[in-house]
Amino acid sequence: MKKRAVVLLSGGLDSATCLAIALSRGYDVFALSFDYGQRSASELLAARAIGLAAGIEKHLVIPLGIGALRGSALTDHQVAVPEQESSGIPVTYVPARNTVFLSYALALAEVSEAQAIFIGVNARDYSGYPDCRPEFIAAFETMANLATKSAVEGCPIKIEVPLLMMSKAEIIKSGTALGVDYTSTVSCYQADMNGRACGLCDSCRFRRKGFFEAGLPDPTRYQST
Amino acid sequence: MKKRAVVLLSGGLDSATCLAIALSRGYDVFALSFDYGQRSASELLAARAIGLAAGIEKHLVIPLGIGALRGSALTDHQVAVPEQESSGIPVTYVPARNTVFLSYALALAEVSEAQAIFIGVNARDYSGYPDCRPEFIAAFETMANLATKSAVEGCPIKIEVPLLMMSKAEIIKSGTALGVDYTSTVSCYQADMNGRACGLCDSCRFRRKGFFEAGLPDPTRYQST
Repeated sequence: MKKRAVVLLSGGLDSATCLAIALSRGYDVFALSFDYGQRSASELLAARAIGLAAGIEKHLVIPLGIGALRGSALTDHQVAVPEQESSGIPVTYVPARNTVFLSYALALAEVSEAQAIFIGVNARDYSGYPDCRPEFIAAFETMANLATKSAVEGCPIKIEVPLLMMSKAEIIKSGTALGVDYTSTVSCYQADMNGRACGLCDSCRFRRKGFFEAGLPDPTRYQST
Repeated sequence: MKKRAVVLLSGGLDSATCLAIALSRGYDVFALSFDYGQRSASELLAARAIGLAAGIEKHLVIPLGIGALRGSALTDHQVAVPEQESSGIPVTYVPARNTVFLSYALALAEVSEAQAIFIGVNARDYSGYPDCRPEFIAAFETMANLATKSAVEGCPIKIEVPLLMMSKAEIIKSGTALGVDYTSTVSCYQADMNGRACGLCDSCRFRRKGFFEAGLPDPTRYQST
């Protein structure tokens, strides 16, 4: 039987590369994306396009219901709302993000009998997020292997993080070597409905710098062009 | 500031007791329930009733989107479907269940600044589930304390499992002593829309035996009465 992996696919540059790496390692891939409200529509379209381009047949989009959580939490903390908004927390912010994503991936791994979960976290460029660190990933894997019947009964699950220590330029070079077309990927925090990037946000600047340092043309579709 | 806890509230006997214990320990409680499709409607109504009876002001119901996951997995394993159905896996079965529930609870704990998460797991009566064991809970807590900004920055989260080693009779006695009215709780795997129990399934038999061994009248509303 061919080995199988669940790959978390956001529609961004990192997860598109992660998908290509999983395929290059011979996995039959079940892609998993999340719908957490309208603002993520262009990301989801990008995720679909990337999956189709890679020939993925199984791609699941799970509605996350995180809007309810955010809304409720904010209702309960009315004083904090304006401050939080003005300090620039994006509307797509998901609390305990990678824990929630990986938990659904674990559920899908259980029902689809996958041996691995690929997630495109990176500890170098985004070191501010605790759930992108190697120690978090290791702790999640330990927990996951105590959580499900299949894992306990001798089919352990591996959390694969191939991009963990790569620079953005290294990620882009790896993906390009594997044939990834980055044109349809969306990294921008405020992409428009057609997936065109603002060119100004942190994510856009990281990405542009990555292509520059990789010595490759930037195929990103910007809103001004 | 009053200490706060997220309490997972399913509408069953165990989680109703767990809620009463959290309140008795002085926590301001944010209750959390999940909607995973129509069959859980009577459980959700029970959860609402239990929360209201306990004076809980903050109660969040998150749509789980797990139906999509199940459906997709089944689509991908068409041969296995009839066998799985006949072997009695309930439609409310959630893969990697406690991992997914606790991950949302962690997200809610992060945004609501809670110090604890209460979950009514029990390793004695349901020892078949790997995610009800103490080692799973300990591993989840370790992971959770590496996952969020607040936990990493000195406000660790504690996973509280007060029912872990109790028998069903001990749970019922504890809850009764704390004033829990078990009439509105729903434990039955196939309760009707009014929350009345079948009296025949495993869960009903465990529950009935619990009241008997506790020496307390069984207030369960059965479908035949």
